[in-house]
Amino acid sequence: MTNEPDGDRELVLTRLIDAPPAAVFRCWTEPELITRWFAPKPWSTPRASVDLRPGGASLVVMADEAGNEYPNPGQYLEIVPGRKLVFTDAYVGDWKPSEKPFFTCTLTFEDEGGKTRYTAVARHWTREDKEAHEKMGFHEGWGLCATQMEAVAKAL
Amino acid sequence: MTNEPDGDRELVLTRLIDAPPAAVFRCWTEPELITRWFAPKPWSTPRASVDLRPGGASLVVMADEAGNEYPNPGQYLEIVPGRKLVFTDAYVGDWKPSEKPFFTCTLTFEDEGGKTRYTAVARHWTREDKEAHEKMGFHEGWGLCATQMEAVAKAL
Repeated sequence: MTNEPDGDRELVLTRLIDAPPAAVFRCWTEPELITRWFAPKPWSTPRASVDLRPGGASLVVMADEAGNEYPNPGQYLEIVPGRKLVFTDAYVGDWKPSEKPFFTCTLTFEDEGGKTRYTAVARHWTREDKEAHEKMGFHEGWGLCATQMEAVAKAL
Repeated sequence: MTNEPDGDRELVLTRLIDAPPAAVFRCWTEPELITRWFAPKPWSTPRASVDLRPGGASLVVMADEAGNEYPNPGQYLEIVPGRKLVFTDAYVGDWKPSEKPFFTCTLTFEDEGGKTRYTAVARHWTREDKEAHEKMGFHEGWGLCATQMEAVAKAL
């Protein structure tokens, strides 16, 4: 194993968030907070459920302006409270395989003088899926959501 | 989420092993013990490495009679000492995706009057992979290996 970045299959977003790591971590792990920022506006997030343990299921439901819902089922893999969160859509809970393993996301929340160095690394199983994710607007979408999340975190 | 078995994508092997759960768990998690039983004879297991933590890499190298080696890289997902072990070939360590997610294995080791109810559930992402695994000789191969493992566990 090396720790070389896998540019062909990875997408990375990093931001300095004006709130402490504990607050940013809460934004990612408390359902009520997730609903406030997860989908880029004018989309919304009607509901979320969180079973915060390795093997615990996660579900975030997004909705477009017409009210059509888009569920995002997944599972938590690793949790370091306030510091790190790893999840994937390759499992749907208790290590049961999903229909299609698309990506695994590692989030880290590092203190930088009271603010948070927020980094999301999205790792895909194939180069094609990474490219599709990029074309779906990964950088723009996750960037917009990070801005929305920052507003929620600052108010905590 | 339900706990219904997923017959289209799952393969199951269960055996009563004449050794306590702690011994059977050791057979699966100590490299030197793994090399004694992992490959069905006359194949052998020249070496194994174990990083026994969620996210830790695993590697078991099997060899045929001519000495050709077949590495099996993977990663541990969940560890309950003496009772449960979950691993997959979908990651190669630290949640880095492998080339091809094929299956995830949940092993349980339950005490039955001093013996071990040993159950292996192999879950695949696709029905095709489950069928391929079955045709590769899952039941026969894992059965032979369970017999080899029992001999090692009994002697501990």
